[in-house]
Amino acid sequence: MLRPGLTGSPLDRADTLRNDPEALGAAMSDWRSRLLRLDGIDPVLSDTGELSWGSLAEAPETAELLLLGLLDGRAHFAALDYSMPEAAARSMAIFRSLELLPPEEASTYAAARSLIDWHLRHRFCARCGSGDTTIHRAGWGRKCSHCATEHFPRVDPVVIMLAEHDRRVLVGRQPRYPKGRYSALAGFLEPGESVEEAVARELWEEAGLKVRDVRYIVSQPWPFPSSLMMACMAYTDDPELTIDTTELDDAFWVDHHGVAASMAGELGAPFLPPPPYAIAHTLFSWWLENTGA
Amino acid sequence: MLRPGLTGSPLDRADTLRNDPEALGAAMSDWRSRLLRLDGIDPVLSDTGELSWGSLAEAPETAELLLLGLLDGRAHFAALDYSMPEAAARSMAIFRSLELLPPEEASTYAAARSLIDWHLRHRFCARCGSGDTTIHRAGWGRKCSHCATEHFPRVDPVVIMLAEHDRRVLVGRQPRYPKGRYSALAGFLEPGESVEEAVARELWEEAGLKVRDVRYIVSQPWPFPSSLMMACMAYTDDPELTIDTTELDDAFWVDHHGVAASMAGELGAPFLPPPPYAIAHTLFSWWLENTGA
Repeated sequence: MLRPGLTGSPLDRADTLRNDPEALGAAMSDWRSRLLRLDGIDPVLSDTGELSWGSLAEAPETAELLLLGLLDGRAHFAALDYSMPEAAARSMAIFRSLELLPPEEASTYAAARSLIDWHLRHRFCARCGSGDTTIHRAGWGRKCSHCATEHFPRVDPVVIMLAEHDRRVLVGRQPRYPKGRYSALAGFLEPGESVEEAVARELWEEAGLKVRDVRYIVSQPWPFPSSLMMACMAYTDDPELTIDTTELDDAFWVDHHGVAASMAGELGAPFLPPPPYAIAHTLFSWWLENTGA
Repeated sequence: MLRPGLTGSPLDRADTLRNDPEALGAAMSDWRSRLLRLDGIDPVLSDTGELSWGSLAEAPETAELLLLGLLDGRAHFAALDYSMPEAAARSMAIFRSLELLPPEEASTYAAARSLIDWHLRHRFCARCGSGDTTIHRAGWGRKCSHCATEHFPRVDPVVIMLAEHDRRVLVGRQPRYPKGRYSALAGFLEPGESVEEAVARELWEEAGLKVRDVRYIVSQPWPFPSSLMMACMAYTDDPELTIDTTELDDAFWVDHHGVAASMAGELGAPFLPPPPYAIAHTLFSWWLENTGA
């Protein structure tokens, strides 16, 4: 069983508690309930490199509580503070935290971050424009008091994939990547297409490849701001590349030895791999294990 | 290769044309460009049971054109008419049309429907509340003139899955289903979870099952209003059910013969199956082919 980063939260999302105002109120006034400590929207790490939790009394006076879930009989919350900076500008600190956090802790944080960020960017009703919207279902929705529309947090599906030809895979780099970094190609899935079609379209648009036999491998959430990353393989009979230079700086084919050297961080390896918490890292590992040299 | 309903549109989504105002303008004034004929938001079917296309001159005076894609060198559009009824109330006609349309035609329509419906329900900026938003990227986004935020059409990932135990699978019925209909269980994926985690959570919440070895099978878009259906299998060692009666009327385990009889429409079969264009139908077929009786 593959275990990508940002998965495995031990919290039970407790769907019934979300929809039970009385039980939710009791959890909010229970001294044993816990609050995720945040610095803006970034996590505060404990000395041992895990998430840090405090009591609900630490929440700002004006904050609203979002129910993350239950663990060991205790309700776990995050505070939504509308004076928070929006998360669009990612701090560098967050990526260092993701390197340190165990995957299951990063998973709990990812849900909190995506949820908070969504509330901050969706305070108005997209249907009628009213600013009179309030949190709903313990934070897993907003409701418009004016037109009664219920809005649910977005999750944006993204396909991320390795094209394979003759035992080599295609790696590419986006302009915003750190120097030397290459990864799997990726793109947002659009309305009206399947995962398999989105993979084929993205490889055509970005690299000029026609592919067959798209195969889903594994998925992870990605909280920037709220994507669902679906890692896939695809196969092509014609490796000639036509790179879309508005999307990619560069792309090239790498064989098993090259990917293995890159993942091992060897000197002279063809590229710097994505970080371990990114699903592209899991996808490269999967490919190395499932493809002969 | 599995071919679920609502997939296989022959249109090239023509990403570069969307972002080239000059070329787009030329396509909009090209007499060869085509307009998808709609009745409200439902498709108008030709005598041969396919989508019907007209010239752009058929678009209402006040409509805006959404670029669906290119086929045979011609740009294909749908008209967005803000006076359209919102699609929330689904007509019965649409389901009959989906029975009639070939999958690749239904796929083209699905993209148009999801896109139109999204524009109708997102005319205001969720970030600042302004009603001064305009279509962007040939219809594949909206931009707020007030705060400059760009909004992209939503795609809501949904997991739909068969739990398996001892060569039997779990089928359930939602209260809104036609009499006798059972299908795979399903639910929306939430921020901060993977496909695999969403499958496990939904089977726990709705049926009280603990599952292992979640396996993705195939996906399809579902334009009510804009879901991405991801069909999966999951395995359980303990078949005891605890049904969430707020979500399901009933659920039961069915063996290979029962599923085969139901899919064949035999008299006395244990349930009426989902329609052929629904991915649950594809999932049942997959399971019958991949599991011995």
